Amino acid sequence: MLKVLFSAKSRAWDEYQAPLNAAFAKAGLDVDLSRDHPPAETDYIVFAPNGPVTDFAPYTRTKAVLSLWAGVETVVDNPTLTQPLCRLVDTSLTQGMVEWVTGHTLRHHLGMDAHIHGQDGIWRDQISPPLAPKRPVTVLGIGALGAACGQALASLGFAVTGWSRSAKNVPGLHCLHGDDGLRTALTDAQIVITLLPQTPQTKDILNAERLALLAKGAFIINPGRGPLIDDAALVQALDSGQIAHATLDVFRVEPLPVDHPFWAHPGVTVTPHIAATTRPETAAEIIVDNIQRGETGRPFLNVVDRGLGY
Amino acid sequence: MLKVLFSAKSRAWDEYQAPLNAAFAKAGLDVDLSRDHPPAETDYIVFAPNGPVTDFAPYTRTKAVLSLWAGVETVVDNPTLTQPLCRLVDTSLTQGMVEWVTGHTLRHHLGMDAHIHGQDGIWRDQISPPLAPKRPVTVLGIGALGAACGQALASLGFAVTGWSRSAKNVPGLHCLHGDDGLRTALTDAQIVITLLPQTPQTKDILNAERLALLAKGAFIINPGRGPLIDDAALVQALDSGQIAHATLDVFRVEPLPVDHPFWAHPGVTVTPHIAATTRPETAAEIIVDNIQRGETGRPFLNVVDRGLGY
Repeated sequence: MLKVLFSAKSRAWDEYQAPLNAAFAKAGLDVDLSRDHPPAETDYIVFAPNGPVTDFAPYTRTKAVLSLWAGVETVVDNPTLTQPLCRLVDTSLTQGMVEWVTGHTLRHHLGMDAHIHGQDGIWRDQISPPLAPKRPVTVLGIGALGAACGQALASLGFAVTGWSRSAKNVPGLHCLHGDDGLRTALTDAQIVITLLPQTPQTKDILNAERLALLAKGAFIINPGRGPLIDDAALVQALDSGQIAHATLDVFRVEPLPVDHPFWAHPGVTVTPHIAATTRPETAAEIIVDNIQRGETGRPFLNVVDRGLGY
Repeated sequence: MLKVLFSAKSRAWDEYQAPLNAAFAKAGLDVDLSRDHPPAETDYIVFAPNGPVTDFAPYTRTKAVLSLWAGVETVVDNPTLTQPLCRLVDTSLTQGMVEWVTGHTLRHHLGMDAHIHGQDGIWRDQISPPLAPKRPVTVLGIGALGAACGQALASLGFAVTGWSRSAKNVPGLHCLHGDDGLRTALTDAQIVITLLPQTPQTKDILNAERLALLAKGAFIINPGRGPLIDDAALVQALDSGQIAHATLDVFRVEPLPVDHPFWAHPGVTVTPHIAATTRPETAAEIIVDNIQRGETGRPFLNVVDRGLGY
């Protein structure tokens, strides 16, 4: 019998226990899923960074650490972690992200807020947005999530540029890479969506200098990671009108502290890290699939490259 | 030289004169475009219902009346109109409609308004919408506009049912028709989009009885025509919570009078007939194409069926 340790918050245990056991049964795996296996007897760890395990050294028998989260930046540099670490790449998470990103892109594109806030009897028919093909949208980060969002926007007619650190080709997107490509991708962009992983290289990637490259009155949509944007530079760009509005789902500290300037700024919409939430049923199947791969000698899926950090 | 009469408001003349003349030149047609050709010498009429021509009887030589508008309900029953009447079916109009409908569908699907209005420091992470495949959307009217909107929503993953008076098949949509089909299409629908033409049969099609068929807390999105919905029944359904919110772009009287209850109702978003606006450049090319068809003996496109009214 395999011993699988569940190391995450109590709330996650309540959500995941039944779906994981159902997925083990469906896969024909004989598993003892528990929150307190002895380290030296643990075959796999189902892991969230906010759970009890922080030292992986005693887990000498453990074949893989399977993250419940897509983002692994808080664990990837843990020196005790020598086992393979797998990110969660969940299609329902991608679907949710596409819906949130497409919705907020269309919201800003159409100027919806003027109507949502303006139910005052004034017939505001002067707002006439361009059609999507005339609206340059740039997606920073074209991994699984960014590529899916960019392609959904392209299928609606938007002119989408995708940028990544190293060269990539995503059908339907104008793809750029590297430092020069970043400058081109941001220059005159009207809507910028940040879906990069959090690494030392992507920290503050949207700084004052790069925000100044965008079209005057551009929109920022950040469902990626809080540190991708220099908060102070963003507030300044909002105050000057260089950025018309920022819709932010992720922050350096979450929940966003009640006294943070983002809450009070009329140019910011805070959403509470909801853009893509993992659904326990689909996540459980993905984790169990990886355990089955380990048990049948096939390679794990979505193993994190420690050098790249994602 | 062809004599083409332009009969619409002065504002439309300012917008259309140059694009129409450019399109005539591009098509190699020798045309005198004017606002005051004598009726008996007029070859074609470019027409809007709010322009000067109301009696078509003197236009004995006129080969077609080419509407600048997609909706022709205010002219289709004019007994003096015996010439072919062509609706404007404009791809940029379809594109604009798809953007507006997709945007507001995602807005309601994601529960965006709670965040747009709720910038008060409260981290509202309890709102967790279903994913699009679990959100039944019904599109009433699957002509050119309704079909395009339904297909865009289906491509984002929504479960879309399309309904039309007579049987139609739109790939990607679950298509229903007739009275029984309407009942099925509305039963338990969570988002309903009305894109039917305005005819005696579609007047008040969303009445109290049919609104009661929808899922509790459903959303109504009307970019079609004001009279498709019984206004009083809608207000009652909003007050009872049967309908959570209605986003309305069209009204019986436009601009919507400042004292209309829709303006003050927290469950209604009024937008000022902006869902799909005709762009002069593309509309001019479509109208000129139809004139060229007439001059080369080919059938006109988008001729209105007087019996059906659209």
